[in-house]
Amino acid sequence: MASLNSIFQYFVPKDRNFFPLFEQATANLSQMGEALVEAVNCANIDERNIKIKAIEDLEHRGDEITHQIFLELSKNFITPFDREDIHYLASAIDDVADYIHGSTNRILYYKVDNISEYIKKLAELIMQSTKELEKAVKELRNMKNLRNITDACVRINSIENQSDYVFDTAVANLFEFETNAIELIKQKEVLSALETATDKCEDAANVIESIIVKYA
Amino acid sequence: MASLNSIFQYFVPKDRNFFPLFEQATANLSQMGEALVEAVNCANIDERNIKIKAIEDLEHRGDEITHQIFLELSKNFITPFDREDIHYLASAIDDVADYIHGSTNRILYYKVDNISEYIKKLAELIMQSTKELEKAVKELRNMKNLRNITDACVRINSIENQSDYVFDTAVANLFEFETNAIELIKQKEVLSALETATDKCEDAANVIESIIVKYA
Amino acid sequence: MASLNSIFQYFVPKDRNFFPLFEQATANLSQMGEALVEAVNCANIDERNIKIKAIEDLEHRGDEITHQIFLELSKNFITPFDREDIHYLASAIDDVADYIHGSTNRILYYKVDNISEYIKKLAELIMQSTKELEKAVKELRNMKNLRNITDACVRINSIENQSDYVFDTAVANLFEFETNAIELIKQKEVLSALETATDKCEDAANVIESIIVKYA
Repeated sequence: MASLNSIFQYFVPKDRNFFPLFEQATANLSQMGEALVEAVNCANIDERNIKIKAIEDLEHRGDEITHQIFLELSKNFITPFDREDIHYLASAIDDVADYIHGSTNRILYYKVDNISEYIKKLAELIMQSTKELEKAVKELRNMKNLRNITDACVRINSIENQSDYVFDTAVANLFEFETNAIELIKQKEVLSALETATDKCEDAANVIESIIVKYA
Repeated sequence: MASLNSIFQYFVPKDRNFFPLFEQATANLSQMGEALVEAVNCANIDERNIKIKAIEDLEHRGDEITHQIFLELSKNFITPFDREDIHYLASAIDDVADYIHGSTNRILYYKVDNISEYIKKLAELIMQSTKELEKAVKELRNMKNLRNITDACVRINSIENQSDYVFDTAVANLFEFETNAIELIKQKEVLSALETATDKCEDAANVIESIIVKYA
Repeated sequence: MASLNSIFQYFVPKDRNFFPLFEQATANLSQMGEALVEAVNCANIDERNIKIKAIEDLEHRGDEITHQIFLELSKNFITPFDREDIHYLASAIDDVADYIHGSTNRILYYKVDNISEYIKKLAELIMQSTKELEKAVKELRNMKNLRNITDACVRINSIENQSDYVFDTAVANLFEFETNAIELIKQKEVLSALETATDKCEDAANVIESIIVKYA
C-alpha cells in the first residue's frame, strides 16, 4: 500500500478542489469560534444579538462550503485522500458549526440572560479548538509537518477533556443550586450545545489523525 | 467515470431488489406522515390512541423493509448505486420513521393532552416532506426526470427550514409562557422528536441529491 | 462474490490484529456491564462511588482499544471483513461504553440518590446485552458456529425491545408521580443514557449480523 500511496502522492499536489474548500471551512469555523467568544462576553444584549446574527451568517456560509465539498466528492473519481475521510471530515466540521450556531440560537430564543462563567469558559475552549483545527487542516495540503498536525490533534483532544469537565461541573452546579427548573433547563441546553461542539471538533481531529496515519 | 456509469446503467434496469424496497419504504413513511397528521388532529383521545397504534404498526413494517434492504446489500455485489448511498438512504428513511413513532409514543406515554398548534404544524410539515421523499424515490428507478427529483429535494430542504423556525418559536414560547416545568419538558420532548423527523427527511434528500449528481 | 470470499478466508485465520482487539473490547464492555449492575445495587454511596470510578477506568481502557482498532484499520490494506464494518462495529462498542459511563457519571455528578427499580432493571439488561455481544464477537474469529452468533444477536434485539418498554414505563411514571421537576430531569437523564446503551448494543449486533450474511 505504501508504494500505491507514493504513486497517488503525485496526484495530490494537483488537487485544486478539496484543500482550498477544507481551508475555507475551517477558517470560517475559526471565525465562528471568535464571534462566539465575543457574543457570550457582550454585556449589552443588543450588541450580543448582533454578534449572534453574525454567527448565523457564518453558519450559512459554512453550509455552502460543506455542500460544495459533497458536490466535488460526487464529481471526482480520484480524491487526495479516502472518500469516506473527506465525507467524515466535512460532516464533522459542519457539525461543529451547527452546534456553535445552536448554542447562540438557544441563548437568543430562550432569552438566556445569565451568561455564566461556565458558558464563557466553554466558548473559550471552542475557540481554541477551532483554531487548532484550522492549523491542522492547513498542514494537510503538503503533509510536510506531520508533527504540527498531530500536535494540534492532541490539543483538540485535551480541550475536549477540559470541556467535559467544565460541562459536568456546570450541570452538577445547576442541580445543586438552581431551584428554578425552567431556568435550569435553559442553562443546561446551552451548555450541552457548547459541549457537543467540542466533541465534534474531536471527531474532526480523529479523522485527520487517521488520514495522516495512512499517508505517513 | 461517466463511461463507467453508462456501462452500469445497462445493469440498473435489471435490478429487481433495491428500487421496489425503497419505494415500499417511502410509501410506508408517507402513510406514517398521514397517520401522524390524523392523530394530532384527533380531538377524541381514544380515537387518537388508535391512530397512534396504527403508526406503531407502520413503524414495525418499516423496520422489516429496512432490514430487507440491508440484507440485499449484504448479498449483492453489484448495486444500482453506491453501496454507502444505499446504506445512508435506508438509514435516513428508517430514522424518519423512528422519530415520527417516537413523537406519538411520547404523546401517548407522557399523556400530552394539549396538542398545540405548533405540534400540528410540524406534523403537517412532516407529512409534506414524506410525500416529497416518496416522489423523489419513485423517480430514482429510471432517472428520466431528474428535475422532478431535484425539485422534491429542494422542497424537503425548504420544509426543514420552516420546521426549524416553528420549533424555535414553539420552544421560545414555552419558555416565555409555560410556568409548569414538567409540562414544558413534555411539550419540548414531543416538539423535538417532530423537528428531528424533518431533519432526517433532509438527510435522505441529501443522499438522493448526491446519487443523482454522480449519475447525471 | 462467494468464491472471492472463499479466497479471502485463507487470509482470515492469519489475522493477528482485529479479532483479539474486538475480543478485548467486548470483554472490557462486559466487565463494565457487571460493574454497572454492582454500582446501581450498592446501598452505600461511598462504595457505589468506588464502583463508578472503576467504570471510568474501564471506559478509558475501552477508548485505548478503540483507538488501536482504528490505527490497525489505517495501516492494513487487507482486513478480515469489510473496512466499514470494522469501523461501525468498533464505534458501536465504543458508544456502548460511553453511555454506560455516561449513566454512572450522571448518577455521580447530579447526586442521584434514588436508584429506582427501573434503573436497576435497565442496568441488568445492559449487562446481559454486553455478555451476548462478547459471545458473538468470540465466534466471529472462526465463523464455525454461525447459529451461536445469530442467537446472540436475536437476544440483543429482544433485550433492546425490553429496555424500550422499561424506559417508556419509567418516564411515563415520572411524569405521572414525580412533582419535583428537577428530580424528574435527573432521573430522566440517567434512564436515557442507560436506554441508549442498549440501542448501541443493538447497533453492534446489526453490524455483526451483516458481517455474517456476507460470509455465510
